[in-house]
Amino acid sequence: MKIIDKINEKLAKGERFFSYEFFPPRTEEGVENLLERLDRMAAYGPTFCDITWGAGGTTSDVTLDIATKMQNSVCVETMMHLTCTNMPVEQLESALKEVRKAGIQNILALRGDPPKGQDHFETVEGGFSCALDLVRYIRKEHGDFFGIGVAGYPEAHPDSIVDDPEQMKVNYWDNIAYLKKKIEAGADFVVTQLFYEVERYIQFVKDCRSVGITAPILPGIMPIMAYGGFKRMTGFCKTAVPKFVSDRMEEIKEDEEAVKAFGIQLGTDMCKQLLDAGAPGVHMYTLNLERSAMAILEGVGLIDPANVPRPLPWRHIPSSGQRAEERVRPIFWSNRPKSYVTRTAKWQEFPNGRWGNSRSPAYATLSEHPFMRRHTSNDKRRERARAAWGAALPSLEAVTDVFVRYCQGDAKVLPWAEMEDLHPETGPIKEGLVALNQAGYLTINSQPRVNGAPSNDATFGWGRKGGYVYQKAYVEFFCSPDKLESLLQRLSGAEGITYLAVNAAGELRTNMAKGTVNAVTWGVFPGSEVEQPTVVDPVSFEVWKDEAFGLWLSEWGALYEEASPSRQLLQTIHDTWWLVSVVDNDYVTGDLFKALGV
Amino acid sequence: MKIIDKINEKLAKGERFFSYEFFPPRTEEGVENLLERLDRMAAYGPTFCDITWGAGGTTSDVTLDIATKMQNSVCVETMMHLTCTNMPVEQLESALKEVRKAGIQNILALRGDPPKGQDHFETVEGGFSCALDLVRYIRKEHGDFFGIGVAGYPEAHPDSIVDDPEQMKVNYWDNIAYLKKKIEAGADFVVTQLFYEVERYIQFVKDCRSVGITAPILPGIMPIMAYGGFKRMTGFCKTAVPKFVSDRMEEIKEDEEAVKAFGIQLGTDMCKQLLDAGAPGVHMYTLNLERSAMAILEGVGLIDPANVPRPLPWRHIPSSGQRAEERVRPIFWSNRPKSYVTRTAKWQEFPNGRWGNSRSPAYATLSEHPFMRRHTSNDKRRERARAAWGAALPSLEAVTDVFVRYCQGDAKVLPWAEMEDLHPETGPIKEGLVALNQAGYLTINSQPRVNGAPSNDATFGWGRKGGYVYQKAYVEFFCSPDKLESLLQRLSGAEGITYLAVNAAGELRTNMAKGTVNAVTWGVFPGSEVEQPTVVDPVSFEVWKDEAFGLWLSEWGALYEEASPSRQLLQTIHDTWWLVSVVDNDYVTGDLFKALGV
Repeated sequence: MKIIDKINEKLAKGERFFSYEFFPPRTEEGVENLLERLDRMAAYGPTFCDITWGAGGTTSDVTLDIATKMQNSVCVETMMHLTCTNMPVEQLESALKEVRKAGIQNILALRGDPPKGQDHFETVEGGFSCALDLVRYIRKEHGDFFGIGVAGYPEAHPDSIVDDPEQMKVNYWDNIAYLKKKIEAGADFVVTQLFYEVERYIQFVKDCRSVGITAPILPGIMPIMAYGGFKRMTGFCKTAVPKFVSDRMEEIKEDEEAVKAFGIQLGTDMCKQLLDAGAPGVHMYTLNLERSAMAILEGVGLIDPANVPRPLPWRHIPSSGQRAEERVRPIFWSNRPKSYVTRTAKWQEFPNGRWGNSRSPAYATLSEHPFMRRHTSNDKRRERARAAWGAALPSLEAVTDVFVRYCQGDAKVLPWAEMEDLHPETGPIKEGLVALNQAGYLTINSQPRVNGAPSNDATFGWGRKGGYVYQKAYVEFFCSPDKLESLLQRLSGAEGITYLAVNAAGELRTNMAKGTVNAVTWGVFPGSEVEQPTVVDPVSFEVWKDEAFGLWLSEWGALYEEASPSRQLLQTIHDTWWLVSVVDNDYVTGDLFKALGV
Repeated sequence: MKIIDKINEKLAKGERFFSYEFFPPRTEEGVENLLERLDRMAAYGPTFCDITWGAGGTTSDVTLDIATKMQNSVCVETMMHLTCTNMPVEQLESALKEVRKAGIQNILALRGDPPKGQDHFETVEGGFSCALDLVRYIRKEHGDFFGIGVAGYPEAHPDSIVDDPEQMKVNYWDNIAYLKKKIEAGADFVVTQLFYEVERYIQFVKDCRSVGITAPILPGIMPIMAYGGFKRMTGFCKTAVPKFVSDRMEEIKEDEEAVKAFGIQLGTDMCKQLLDAGAPGVHMYTLNLERSAMAILEGVGLIDPANVPRPLPWRHIPSSGQRAEERVRPIFWSNRPKSYVTRTAKWQEFPNGRWGNSRSPAYATLSEHPFMRRHTSNDKRRERARAAWGAALPSLEAVTDVFVRYCQGDAKVLPWAEMEDLHPETGPIKEGLVALNQAGYLTINSQPRVNGAPSNDATFGWGRKGGYVYQKAYVEFFCSPDKLESLLQRLSGAEGITYLAVNAAGELRTNMAKGTVNAVTWGVFPGSEVEQPTVVDPVSFEVWKDEAFGLWLSEWGALYEEASPSRQLLQTIHDTWWLVSVVDNDYVTGDLFKALGV
């Protein structure tokens, strides 16, 4: 979706919004860390995130890669920067094509800084010399496909900042005239350069409007996080700094924490003034850090950690293509959403209301995908995994213990979960889960029953306000053949329990009727059909089981030597145990754990 | 669906079942009455209904017409009789083609009685001489498409009944051998000739099994309803009558009511004995009458008038084609289901879980369809309508009064309802409806809110047991432009109310977002996706409005002279009033009538 459409929706509803900017890290581990941070920050619902273009082209591949993951794995509306620096037109075109392929529909068109080691921008052969050319090119070659943002300079472009006040005035208005040309060439909205004098932004917007620029102008906010960085950045951008800010910074420059706290306070005050003055939202230059940006947004009231909005129980990919229709997923992947998204990336059709007949059966295989080695993909992660799962597994009890500790919140990682920590909603059933694990049913997924919680409930809510959400109690676990037998015997008399059990060899035992699909999360909203975003279905369970069993070996087993007893123990579990999915269909009065005998 | 598959489902679940047989009436009015009766009787869930073939071909067109309506308007699994009497093979084939086209998948293959005026059956040129030929022909030409039933004669075929006991024994076993041939040729199940000695059926089944006939054998039950008819029928069929029956009949032959009561008692006793002896179900020869058959089924416990099963809130057409998938309909037609079925008969696709994208927009027009003249299609109906709606309409109050009396149960017919009486579920909101009508909002459709009633609830329940059903409160009415203005002003402040208002000219006023569809009835069942069988959607509302406005003139207006004040009053309403559909989305705590100000 185009960002301008999202902005206009917000404006129509009178809602303020926010967005984040990131830059491509230099190392692979840096990228992994950024994506995890992004994951957390995206939960708060930014209108979009943007990622800068590697100046000089050195990190341009990384930018493309991160942008793709932001859009399709983190699932946030993504804008990619594109600059003219060192970019012949063929290279620009190839980047635009790749961006389109990734489902990204937004570009921030910039001239870009001079490449490293040069003082002044120089046009490469066959390239463009300014953002205006880039905007024109994108509109000419790609029509209306892309939403285009451009930069605005409340204090004029640094290159045009001079000491002579008269000349400066001319340059300032030239800058605005140039901005107008970019809008007229097809840009949709403006993001400003960083500034610290709020009045500059207010005056700039006023001046833009006076020449007929009507596009939204988002103030770019760079929180002060360190004295050195602040000095460098304001020097480089020739940013005016109010006297109370520079005075205070000098006072506290030795105290890192005081600088950070001041940065948060200043950013909060600025954002409040900006929003009061009519800014439609704020764009946070995060410098890839979480704390200051989030603290400012919380201080302004744009986010509320106690009430994170969830449009759906799982994170929806903001693609403009087929995936925009996606409204239903199997519950099996709820702790491994990125695996699900990857495996279904090639689907031509997504169910948009019920799993039913729209289900596309072709899941991509995941054998050699990095998600299969999430906890062992580098030394640091291996170390964390070893700490959580044990340097060796002397017995089955040691394995059981890992699951018990995970449920208790003591072990932070588990092969079957992409994210650390259990979902907050497992709180009410934590005790039951611990008991179940202690009894030898090693849980990897669960949800409690919910009978009509308000859709804005802090724990269970999702979707628009004014609705009611429901869940059937669910638990999924591995267990030995013996445990399975006693369980099935127990369940044979239970009313309203449906189960699926499968082993690595593919033997299936179930009491679900053939071809049926069970909705386990649904929501009823004003003026809408019933949404049923997570389901249990036997067909996708058989796909999931390969992945679920595989993780015993590819993730956990990979920690230990080939022929070690620990590895052999996990191999035995893999070869002989069962994966069991159980739903208590009575979401009104049922007690799943009682039915399971714990 | 094939009846044998439905029978096998019942057998697998250990459930007993019942079915009805009807014959084609001679007059058009008779057909209309039969279909209305069938409508009521079908509500109890017979496994199938069958309709006899006009012997001699005189009423064969009527049979085809009724069979089509049984299947597609009354919505009951239909079996059509087909006999060899006077039927050259081309005529048989053309009948089979027409039956297929109507979505009927079941044929009872019979030789048939001799044509009127003849004593013995004679094969027509190019025709078949026996049911066996017919079964073979159907299987040869239509493969597995049709389910085929055949007749069984517990006392042997009347033609082969002779006095000589030795010869009779031979004839009896010949009959069974012939039945076996019919089964081997492809018949699926057997319906027996009427009988009054239960032991005959039991012995007959035993003898059939002894020669390897394994097909289900349904006992055919003909309740005694009148002395004369009983004597004629048992004479014609050479049916053995137990002494206690003939004795009792002689005693009470002058007393019609006593005969009927005895027939019910006898039928009930027989059915109980048959089911106890292992009969899978009972097939009622209704003679097109309702009371005796229903009383027997109730006496046996096969039906319970206090708990009529509803697989869906509306009646599902048991077709084997596209329509089998149909699970969702707009609420607008809930009082005119036959109109809906007719208008969507040509749809290639039906939504099977949500209205969403599966909605086919092409509704057939209904301008000159008989359903448009339901209450004025013959003199008797015109008379009833005039009694309900007034011989003249002196003022708007007279019109209002009709609606008020309809809600109170005093007027039995309304142009916008195919069935008489309000749905039982409107009981709880009757008072509110009366007040709303008195206030000038003339209601034509409504339902109360339901927050999770058990799916077997006598009033609101539908679908399988063990589920919960929900409804959003709904009301639909006509009102004057003034009333609309004050209503919309009132609703502008109301939370959770969505409405659609349209006039005959097509002006639309609504607060529903474009492209949205509102599910107003849904059900949550074990092991299933959420069912949402009725919806409010703006697109079909615009189709419905033509029908709804049209009824003011085609049905009601047609009662009065062209230029009469009554006719003019209805014309003014038609031309200037609005049709309004209102949903209270808060099915948990909402009060729709309070929101509407009554």
